[in-house]
Amino acid sequence: MTDASQSQFVALSGGVGGAKLALGLAEVLAPEQLTIVANTGDDFEHLGFCISPDLDTVLYTLAGWNNTAQGWGQEGESWQFLDALGRLSGETWFSLGDRDLATHVVRTNLLKQGHSLSEVIAYLAEKMNIRHSVVPMTDDRVSTRVNLQSGGSLSFQHYFVRDRCEPVVSGFEFEGIDTAQPSAGFIAAVDRADAVIVCPSNPFVSVAPVLSLPGIQDQLADRPVVVVSNIVGGQALKGPAAKMMDELGMPTTALGVARHYRERYGELFDGFVLDRQDAAMEAEVQALGYSTIVTNTVMLTLQDKTELARQVLDFTARL
Amino acid sequence: MTDASQSQFVALSGGVGGAKLALGLAEVLAPEQLTIVANTGDDFEHLGFCISPDLDTVLYTLAGWNNTAQGWGQEGESWQFLDALGRLSGETWFSLGDRDLATHVVRTNLLKQGHSLSEVIAYLAEKMNIRHSVVPMTDDRVSTRVNLQSGGSLSFQHYFVRDRCEPVVSGFEFEGIDTAQPSAGFIAAVDRADAVIVCPSNPFVSVAPVLSLPGIQDQLADRPVVVVSNIVGGQALKGPAAKMMDELGMPTTALGVARHYRERYGELFDGFVLDRQDAAMEAEVQALGYSTIVTNTVMLTLQDKTELARQVLDFTARL
Repeated sequence: MTDASQSQFVALSGGVGGAKLALGLAEVLAPEQLTIVANTGDDFEHLGFCISPDLDTVLYTLAGWNNTAQGWGQEGESWQFLDALGRLSGETWFSLGDRDLATHVVRTNLLKQGHSLSEVIAYLAEKMNIRHSVVPMTDDRVSTRVNLQSGGSLSFQHYFVRDRCEPVVSGFEFEGIDTAQPSAGFIAAVDRADAVIVCPSNPFVSVAPVLSLPGIQDQLADRPVVVVSNIVGGQALKGPAAKMMDELGMPTTALGVARHYRERYGELFDGFVLDRQDAAMEAEVQALGYSTIVTNTVMLTLQDKTELARQVLDFTARL
Repeated sequence: MTDASQSQFVALSGGVGGAKLALGLAEVLAPEQLTIVANTGDDFEHLGFCISPDLDTVLYTLAGWNNTAQGWGQEGESWQFLDALGRLSGETWFSLGDRDLATHVVRTNLLKQGHSLSEVIAYLAEKMNIRHSVVPMTDDRVSTRVNLQSGGSLSFQHYFVRDRCEPVVSGFEFEGIDTAQPSAGFIAAVDRADAVIVCPSNPFVSVAPVLSLPGIQDQLADRPVVVVSNIVGGQALKGPAAKMMDELGMPTTALGVARHYRERYGELFDGFVLDRQDAAMEAEVQALGYSTIVTNTVMLTLQDKTELARQVLDFTARL
């Protein structure tokens, strides 16, 4: 480990995969050294509740409230509300747990009282005894839409949850992105950051909304940015990233991810973290202009998470 | 039993006590013979949910979904939401069960879509396989406020649930009552009713809001109206009615109830149903101008409920 005890880091995260590395970073870094910025493109309103899936996943993971067996949601969750809603023929395609509902009720009411999403998340984080900063990418409404090869488009949660990622995608749009502002916490954190870490999250629906916010790429341009591949051994460890890449005509490999980021964001990313399973691609990734490291990126245990966090932090210090 | 197979009845009900007789009436009468009108003065908005406690109690009771052990709410209820809300320092003074929440979410969303409360209740009743008509007293907002002897006033649920009926009352107001209209279902049911039954409910906060709706007393005036005493043996079987009577300077007896109704509504009520425990008061109640019967009004079993319903229906036929 480097003399990083005073260094400042920003981690960009989507949901489950990104939150694992965010937890590793939070274990390794002091609270004042780390700001975790979560995607809000998945946010939506459902049954009158304002729901922020990626932010909640990050919060629950950092608080130790996450359901490790299920892979999402809260530990000790139950489903009585959803069962009762089904009896009343309500919409049950989105699994709202009884405990999870409390988070949505608190958020919805604070937002309706005029608080910003950043304020809401700070409130929730404090109640969960989370000491590191968690901020939304924006306090404005940005809504990811999934364009389909069959024509038309779906809201992200309809695609992701209701339709189980089954439709074939042709691209993505982020409604509201042109007029959205990065949150003040996001801007301030990047401003003081020595390096930025892009967690292993979906390039299209987790990373892209964050990087599509006006001005963010310019602000990141003069800082070391390291990305951890979300594809390992040709598979997405979680979620539809590999399926999306295939449908968009990209090879579903770490190299494919590295090339996509180059094509989309030019020289924005300096470092690329490959899993050991993908060591054979290292030279080709380097040929794209990336610095690289090869390490274990599959985070099953807390030790996996902290070890990857240390490796990534060391890597940023060498850039 | 009389030849009441074609007769039409309206039952006015508050919460738990009233709902018991409503269930008895529903067991005895065909669906097309009975309309149950519930008080909505207790309705309130809490945490963004539109909550109708008396209507829900009637619905749950008629559906057989009510929690008989607890005496309110739903059978098989759980409290994970409330527990999680407490961890987030949310307002937990009103016990929102996980299953109950589904009812409030459905109601709140339908109301926000522009449906009337009558339509919402018809929807819920259908989903609960309730065959008898249940209607709100009004589709307009009426809010019971409890005036305190210490000065000031409380919203009903703050008085009833949060403050556990501890403050000493000086009277009641029904905000919005002057401009509220009885629901179309209420008006139509009274219009075709052969008799009206006032269930054993709180005179001040359950019966009074219903009877304070503009025009309702005139509409009831030419029909037999029978009231079942909510005070038995000097006690309210449920709720703060006896405590309220005491604080308002009334004797906490069935006779006190009978006198209160005379003073407040003149000759509106024709018949008064006394419990056997209060048989000694029958002559004094008759002296107030009521016809009377004395029977068991304590409804512990379903048979108690249906037997009281039969007695009351027979009584109306003799008026």
